[in-house]
Amino acid sequence: MTSKIVGEVTSANTQYAANFGDKAKLAMPPARHFAILTCMDARLDPAKYAGLAEGDAHVIRNAGGRATDDALRSLVISHKLLGTNEWFVIHHSDCGMELFCDEVMGSLLEDNLNTASFDGKNWSNPQHGGGCAAGHFIKWHTIKSQEESVLQDVLRIRQHPLTPRNVPVYGYIYDVKTGRLNEVAKATEAGRAA
Amino acid sequence: MTSKIVGEVTSANTQYAANFGDKAKLAMPPARHFAILTCMDARLDPAKYAGLAEGDAHVIRNAGGRATDDALRSLVISHKLLGTNEWFVIHHSDCGMELFCDEVMGSLLEDNLNTASFDGKNWSNPQHGGGCAAGHFIKWHTIKSQEESVLQDVLRIRQHPLTPRNVPVYGYIYDVKTGRLNEVAKATEAGRAA
Repeated sequence: MTSKIVGEVTSANTQYAANFGDKAKLAMPPARHFAILTCMDARLDPAKYAGLAEGDAHVIRNAGGRATDDALRSLVISHKLLGTNEWFVIHHSDCGMELFCDEVMGSLLEDNLNTASFDGKNWSNPQHGGGCAAGHFIKWHTIKSQEESVLQDVLRIRQHPLTPRNVPVYGYIYDVKTGRLNEVAKATEAGRAA
Repeated sequence: MTSKIVGEVTSANTQYAANFGDKAKLAMPPARHFAILTCMDARLDPAKYAGLAEGDAHVIRNAGGRATDDALRSLVISHKLLGTNEWFVIHHSDCGMELFCDEVMGSLLEDNLNTASFDGKNWSNPQHGGGCAAGHFIKWHTIKSQEESVLQDVLRIRQHPLTPRNVPVYGYIYDVKTGRLNEVAKATEAGRAA
C-alpha cells in the first residue's frame, strides 16, 4: 500500500534522475568549502536562498537551526574530514520555535501524541489520552528572540573546543516575507577568529 | 572584511529575494504534511531529488542523516506542533560516515583540529599539535552499511516513545551516481504502524 506522498516523491525523483547529467562526477568534499546550519522550516530552501548547486556546500538542518551537540558533531566532521572552512548559522523570522516553551511541549505530549492546535496564543490537544511523559525530559531549544538565538548559537560554535580558530562563523536571519538574508552583525563579529 | 563566499551567498540571495513572488504568503505548517531526515552531504539536494517547493515539507539534515536525539527532537516538533504525518529517512551511497570510526576521529582531533587527508584507506593529519581530547567523548554515528543504518534509524524512530503509532517511517538510500532513491524495503516495513 503506497501513500499519495510516497507516490509523488518517487515520481518527482524519477524525473530528477532522468536529467541527472554530470552530477555523477561530483566529489564528496564540498566544492565551495562552506557549511550552513539552518532551520528545518518548510519555507526555507537553503540551496535557493543561498545559491547552492549540488556539490557546493554542507547543509545541516534541525528545528530552529540550533547549535545543538548534534549540529556540532556535523560541523566538526564537515571541517575535519571534508574541508569546509566557513560556517553560516541562519535562523529565520516567524519560526515555530518562538511559539512554545519546554513546559508547554512537555505537558502537551504527556496528554496526547497527536498534532496539537494553536489559536494564535495557546496550544491545545484535540484528543486526550495516550500521551507520554518523556517530553518533560527533552530540551526543545525554543527561541525567544532570533537575534539572541543566532548570537548564542554562533558563540556556542565559536567557543566549542573542537572548532578551529581559523574557521569564521557568520550569523544571519532569513526573512520569510522577503526571502532576504539579514546579517546579525554582532553574531558574525563574535564568530570571527580572534 | 568580507570573504569571497559571503559575497557570493549575499549576491545569490539578492537575486532570490528579487524574484520572491508569492512565497511571502506561505504558511508555517508544511503544506504536504511530511518530513525528510537526510544527510548534510553537499551532493544531496532534497528539494530537487524529492520534488519539494518552498512550503511543502520539513527537511532535517545532519552528518549521515542519522536518527540522533536531536533529529528525534525535530521530528517530534514536526508532527506534534506542525502536523507532519509521514517521515522519510534517506541515507546515501558513498557517504563520508563510512570512511572512519569513533577511534580514528578521536585520535585525529586529539592531534590537530585542521582538515585531515584521506589516501583512500587511511586518514592522516598534515599538521600536528593544537588538538583537543574532546573528540574521544563524542559518538560520531559512523556507518558500516547503509542498509543497516537506514534500518536501525527507522527502527529507532519507530520505537521512540514520542513517535505516534499512526506516523509511517519510510527508509531509502539515495544513489549519488544516478540521483535515484532506492527503497530499503525491510526498513520501510519496520517503519509502518503495527
